[in-house]
Amino acid sequence: MVPAEDVDLSTVKYEQEPVHAPHLTGFVFSLFVRIVEAPLIGPWIMSMMKKQNKVDELLRNTVIPEEPMFIPEYPPQEMEPGVVIIDEDGRPGDRVESALACLPFYDPAAFLGNSSTSFRYWKIRDYAYAYRSRNVTPSMVAESIISVIEEISGKKPPTPLLISFDAEEVRKQAAASTRRFEAGNPLSILDGIFMAIKDDIDCCPYPSKGGTTWLHEVRQVKEDAVSVARLRSCGVIFVGKANMHELGMGTTGNNPHYGTTRNPHAPERYTGGSSSGPAAIVASGLCSAALGTDGGGSVRIPSSLCGVVGLKTTYRRTDMDGSTCDSGTVEIIGPIASTVEDVMLVYAAMVGSSPASKINMKPPPASLPVLSSNDDSDILGSLRLGKYTPWFNDVHSTEVSDKCEDALNQLSKAYGCEMIEVAVPELHDMQVSHLVSIGSECLCGLNPDCEDGKAKKLSYDTRTSMALFRSFTAADYVAAQRIRRRLMHYHMEIFKKVDVIVTPTTGMTAPIIPPSALKSGESDMVVTGYLMRFVVAANLLGFPAISVPVGYDKQGLPIGLQLIGRPWGEATILRLASAVENLSGESRKRPITYYDVLKAN
Amino acid sequence: MVPAEDVDLSTVKYEQEPVHAPHLTGFVFSLFVRIVEAPLIGPWIMSMMKKQNKVDELLRNTVIPEEPMFIPEYPPQEMEPGVVIIDEDGRPGDRVESALACLPFYDPAAFLGNSSTSFRYWKIRDYAYAYRSRNVTPSMVAESIISVIEEISGKKPPTPLLISFDAEEVRKQAAASTRRFEAGNPLSILDGIFMAIKDDIDCCPYPSKGGTTWLHEVRQVKEDAVSVARLRSCGVIFVGKANMHELGMGTTGNNPHYGTTRNPHAPERYTGGSSSGPAAIVASGLCSAALGTDGGGSVRIPSSLCGVVGLKTTYRRTDMDGSTCDSGTVEIIGPIASTVEDVMLVYAAMVGSSPASKINMKPPPASLPVLSSNDDSDILGSLRLGKYTPWFNDVHSTEVSDKCEDALNQLSKAYGCEMIEVAVPELHDMQVSHLVSIGSECLCGLNPDCEDGKAKKLSYDTRTSMALFRSFTAADYVAAQRIRRRLMHYHMEIFKKVDVIVTPTTGMTAPIIPPSALKSGESDMVVTGYLMRFVVAANLLGFPAISVPVGYDKQGLPIGLQLIGRPWGEATILRLASAVENLSGESRKRPITYYDVLKAN
Repeated sequence: MVPAEDVDLSTVKYEQEPVHAPHLTGFVFSLFVRIVEAPLIGPWIMSMMKKQNKVDELLRNTVIPEEPMFIPEYPPQEMEPGVVIIDEDGRPGDRVESALACLPFYDPAAFLGNSSTSFRYWKIRDYAYAYRSRNVTPSMVAESIISVIEEISGKKPPTPLLISFDAEEVRKQAAASTRRFEAGNPLSILDGIFMAIKDDIDCCPYPSKGGTTWLHEVRQVKEDAVSVARLRSCGVIFVGKANMHELGMGTTGNNPHYGTTRNPHAPERYTGGSSSGPAAIVASGLCSAALGTDGGGSVRIPSSLCGVVGLKTTYRRTDMDGSTCDSGTVEIIGPIASTVEDVMLVYAAMVGSSPASKINMKPPPASLPVLSSNDDSDILGSLRLGKYTPWFNDVHSTEVSDKCEDALNQLSKAYGCEMIEVAVPELHDMQVSHLVSIGSECLCGLNPDCEDGKAKKLSYDTRTSMALFRSFTAADYVAAQRIRRRLMHYHMEIFKKVDVIVTPTTGMTAPIIPPSALKSGESDMVVTGYLMRFVVAANLLGFPAISVPVGYDKQGLPIGLQLIGRPWGEATILRLASAVENLSGESRKRPITYYDVLKAN
Repeated sequence: MVPAEDVDLSTVKYEQEPVHAPHLTGFVFSLFVRIVEAPLIGPWIMSMMKKQNKVDELLRNTVIPEEPMFIPEYPPQEMEPGVVIIDEDGRPGDRVESALACLPFYDPAAFLGNSSTSFRYWKIRDYAYAYRSRNVTPSMVAESIISVIEEISGKKPPTPLLISFDAEEVRKQAAASTRRFEAGNPLSILDGIFMAIKDDIDCCPYPSKGGTTWLHEVRQVKEDAVSVARLRSCGVIFVGKANMHELGMGTTGNNPHYGTTRNPHAPERYTGGSSSGPAAIVASGLCSAALGTDGGGSVRIPSSLCGVVGLKTTYRRTDMDGSTCDSGTVEIIGPIASTVEDVMLVYAAMVGSSPASKINMKPPPASLPVLSSNDDSDILGSLRLGKYTPWFNDVHSTEVSDKCEDALNQLSKAYGCEMIEVAVPELHDMQVSHLVSIGSECLCGLNPDCEDGKAKKLSYDTRTSMALFRSFTAADYVAAQRIRRRLMHYHMEIFKKVDVIVTPTTGMTAPIIPPSALKSGESDMVVTGYLMRFVVAANLLGFPAISVPVGYDKQGLPIGLQLIGRPWGEATILRLASAVENLSGESRKRPITYYDVLKAN
């Protein structure tokens, strides 16, 4: 390889990436797993598969001139225009207050009036209005939610949104919130707001199983994760631990242990993952928001496939303490909600990482876009959007790229945003570098837990991933970090010319759940390829990114647009996402499994 | 493991570390290498050896609560007292000028007069005085050196100090320097000073073989390494590329391809390594200084065993561009010279790392101790020296620890330095973490070069190391970085109480070269254990450290004291080393193979 700075980005050619791996389900899958876990033959098969996909060629036979970049490192960034700082060291409630002041004027008429004309999710401010106008109490909403959850747990097909759920605990939290409203002392706009927490983030009194059957036995929950504690201090009510792809090692949300969460827009289809439960519970109207983790698109993919908004924050912008994978270099905790403004409110409450272990990395102050400002249109108009057209169009169905294209055209038309053609080189290498990084970091944390045959209790899917991860050598890991530095260089060059990189969030809409995959999972690298095609840059390089709904394909399946921002540039992508939502998101479809928990009161 | 901050350092118990590995030479060694390189059985043997040495138990079966620290990270450090800043962005010659001003008054009488009474190395200022008083020219010295090198190359046993040497090139550089002196325009105090460069650092017009027979074929030298270029700009004359342990992967200096450099104090013994040639060529009086690389003691170990001074700089204090292992997290380029003042002059010329790739790591300004100041004794008296007595005493022969102890007692007596007992926990883990880090980073760089059977051209010793390094998984690498964070925590706690940690540099004096090891190398992990026992903290954690001679054992073999400083604390350890040298270093032995190149004129 020539040094990255000598690569001429104007001559980069897009190359479609063929995926070489069998689609496996059922008995064949179980057999395959036993083989790849066997001594001798297993490592040999893995090495053949890696050879076919040119993994070893890149990691072992290529001179990569860059030195390793082990965690995302950026040059200092300029403060974005039209933002307010939300003080990470302050009280979460104060930050939520600042976020609230950024939002456009709230008109309760829209909430009370036209619910019949077109579908519209209840927003956090709708609940807040309802609670404050004493029409409804958190306890009343809690009863609605509890009854729905108890009802659907008996349904066929089952829709296991939650892995851990305790109706009494929900009632207790709701009663406390109700009392605060009765006393006229709600803690914040988030008081009485219902949220679900992905099963790999600690939330008392529930265990953190990470979608497995046993992880909680070796990893006790002692206290709330930092981000959960911050939300709790704002009065948020936690309904339980949301379902997920086991250990986050998959993008469909398939989970043979607890059942596979079904897409609220098409119950025979996946939600996407790994934050399957969080996205689905928001999409189905049961919760205003949820927290997910995103190490390889795990917040954005299910948000896209379920038609909600998911924010992947900048690496180390949110605190990872109290999540099962708290030591990686690619993963963050991020909010999922039905609208951008709700994402902003939750983000404001939870933002900020504890400084203890980050000696050399003090993030710049977090900020939010002032959407209520008169300058908002001007600022939007100044944004330059980078699009890599051949990549953008390399999707399973052109409906996906067409809808995203439409949304961008609307943006240009409404605000005058400039579209700039960019090229991202070495996309295959980026995927490999990401895979090696996330896999090795995950395996490192799990290795000591997997003694005593616990690894055999994992799903076939996870076991296949683990076998692959085990095949990476330490030198492979270092090589992957050299690639990370190359990709960082290319992206920082691109960000000199554009403010945001736009892509579809996923290369396809929600895939069908093969019936044979329900019991023992599946491995389908082609689907994985489409789902992960656009998401990993934000993980490998730590950039913030958001998925925002832009419409539906002919089958009524949601399509998401991804906006990738500069390091620490959450405010810009939130501003842009809000504009996209206003332009194209108003005509949202009511999901098939939607529960009108507020109206039910 | 409990979190590092919960470990009570006052209750740490020292544990001797038994090494489990066979001593291998000759035919048995060649057979062993063939076995460990074989599929199936090789990995199995490696895994057994790692099991015996509790490597996998630590890396795979232990929950390490810290998050990984991939490169040494430190909190900001206070400026040391009584120093001058040597401006990294300025001209190397100006920095050397600043360094010169730090040194005590130079009295040529000491140089001209008492050379008969006791042995004393010619210092850089002696050469400078001789050149400026026109007694001698660089060209005259060059002829002396060339004749010695040509003479010893035919001797039995051979003492292969240099791997690449070109008499005409040396004459050319010397003639240019001579002309500058004739014109009255020497470039700096280093003009006309002869230096050797370790074979893994680029120095035109020589190839960089890294001690192998083939590395230069795949890795061309295009220009001087940054540190070499800086020295060249000061007028330094380079005699050639110094011998080394192949690829730096060993601590004895054994090299079956070019012959094993012999210890100037005992030709039947090793010099130590991997910078064997650099230390030996300085110790034998042929060069005033040399550059070595130190990734696991490779500057300090041979300096200690050869009775000279070797400085391991803080990670990223010197520039690695143009060395064969330029991308590691443990390695630096550092100077070797016969005295502390010469180390200071060379260090001043070469210091400074290029900022290009170090986005988040701007080192604080480099500084040197003002030894000429009146405050020097006061500052020395204020230094608190940390000693971990059971570790300090865990040496092959108590002569080593006794001599180091004597030097410290002299320091306390002369200046009142306070000795404070400290304890460093998890020393075994530190060795493992270091081994995994250096091995994987090295292997990553070498993997692409080792195609086409080139790996088979490496020595058995290197091949054994490579087989071990290949056995580390990516998750092992990540686990090693978690251990790095623990050890950093412990050391930063210790550095709250002390300014310098003192140890013997090596746990033994120069080991015998088994005759059977000359042809095909050897593997003796017991010797490696003694040589590396005290050095790796400075590599794994990036601290500066210096080895300074403190005397000899009964067999006349040199003993070195190691001073480990705080991050960026080169000035303090140089000050202390200079004091140690003044107190105990004056009575230095003339090496058996010593060449009086200046006097010869």
